[in-house]
Amino acid sequence: MAKLEVAFSPDLYPFYENKEAIVVVIDVFRATSAICTAFEHGVKSIIPVESIDQAREYQKKGYIVAAERQGQVVEGFNLGNSPFHYMDKGLVGKEVVLTTTNGTRAISIAKSSHQIIIGSFLNLTAVCDYLKGEKRDVLLLCAGWRGRFNLEDSLFAGAVVHELSGEYFNELSDSARAAQTFYNVGENNIGEFLENSSHRRRLKNLNLEKDINYCLQFDQTKVVPALEGEGLVAVK
Amino acid sequence: MAKLEVAFSPDLYPFYENKEAIVVVIDVFRATSAICTAFEHGVKSIIPVESIDQAREYQKKGYIVAAERQGQVVEGFNLGNSPFHYMDKGLVGKEVVLTTTNGTRAISIAKSSHQIIIGSFLNLTAVCDYLKGEKRDVLLLCAGWRGRFNLEDSLFAGAVVHELSGEYFNELSDSARAAQTFYNVGENNIGEFLENSSHRRRLKNLNLEKDINYCLQFDQTKVVPALEGEGLVAVK
Repeated sequence: MAKLEVAFSPDLYPFYENKEAIVVVIDVFRATSAICTAFEHGVKSIIPVESIDQAREYQKKGYIVAAERQGQVVEGFNLGNSPFHYMDKGLVGKEVVLTTTNGTRAISIAKSSHQIIIGSFLNLTAVCDYLKGEKRDVLLLCAGWRGRFNLEDSLFAGAVVHELSGEYFNELSDSARAAQTFYNVGENNIGEFLENSSHRRRLKNLNLEKDINYCLQFDQTKVVPALEGEGLVAVK
Repeated sequence: MAKLEVAFSPDLYPFYENKEAIVVVIDVFRATSAICTAFEHGVKSIIPVESIDQAREYQKKGYIVAAERQGQVVEGFNLGNSPFHYMDKGLVGKEVVLTTTNGTRAISIAKSSHQIIIGSFLNLTAVCDYLKGEKRDVLLLCAGWRGRFNLEDSLFAGAVVHELSGEYFNELSDSARAAQTFYNVGENNIGEFLENSSHRRRLKNLNLEKDINYCLQFDQTKVVPALEGEGLVAVK
């Protein structure tokens, strides 16, 4: 018997905080999709940092550093949070430092939990299988957009609730039930369901349609990235 | 052209704050339902206060004071937030001070907005008609439960979005779209849709089934309560 809950924004995390839970950080467009892609393509570890200043410090020390703000690569950095940036043979076996607008903040905020793992449609089934195996409380933490609720992260949370809820994961928060309702409505055509989402419109304006379509694919990798110490590594 | 947005928790208010907007405070179980009922039954004004201490101060000054915490009337007070407490001829024409677990906090937090009005299923159509007439940005502020998302307030928010969204209210937040999706799923049987909501279960344990059923009725009053100075009055 375990809890299955959803926080629709990092700013709601304190009200769901549970030191026994595995927290799944979700930032579908695009941080967590990029992280899953990076591990699938051989990156060894990713160090999430919150600020551009921290990112610059790592850069000075010679690290490979990715930095995104407002959907774009920050000036002075070579990588952002497009999944396509991580399909690079030059990154195989490497350690990458990453800061993004919403995703890395969500990782940082959840550090009091039992474990932090990374979820996206790209590793949906792998994440669900991992959670079923671990048999612990689960908190699905949506990165949202600058504190606001967003549709794509909530929809992914709903996909996980849809897959897990049942005899074992039987203590659902209202937010988990709501996310499941979304997923039930949207599951047969998530692209269409998200057509009018604010973030999708924002990315479309930046001509990131290719990224969006990539991020909305199910099960492109079996990797489950998890935080160990300061860095994310593939635990599965 | 106007914005139509939903904050699923008072703690998300800062991310939706809009000084030009009318904020609809929503606490279906039961603060805003009780407030609507009070005005329908002749109460003259309601002064919302955040803390029990503030409520006691008013009590000492001779005010009629209602105080609810954890779903129950606080010791030392005669009224709580059951709508049935306000169907009392002794309250006609009177000023009542009110503090509740979630609802009065939501009112307090939104004071920077253009106007605060009170919404519940009991005055749904009156609220929508008022908003259509005012032609301003709208922020639907769910009181939630101690910072958490809840189903019943979100469902009501969805009912308002369902009624308003269109040519004029055309700038919907992701949260407004999500609330509308709920409402589309739940509208034909809101009682059943809310059957498993955490707050409904909490109230059921306190034998408040009669209150729940009362609060889930549509359009029992044409009153629209609004904050004027320190007190709520019926503006319509």
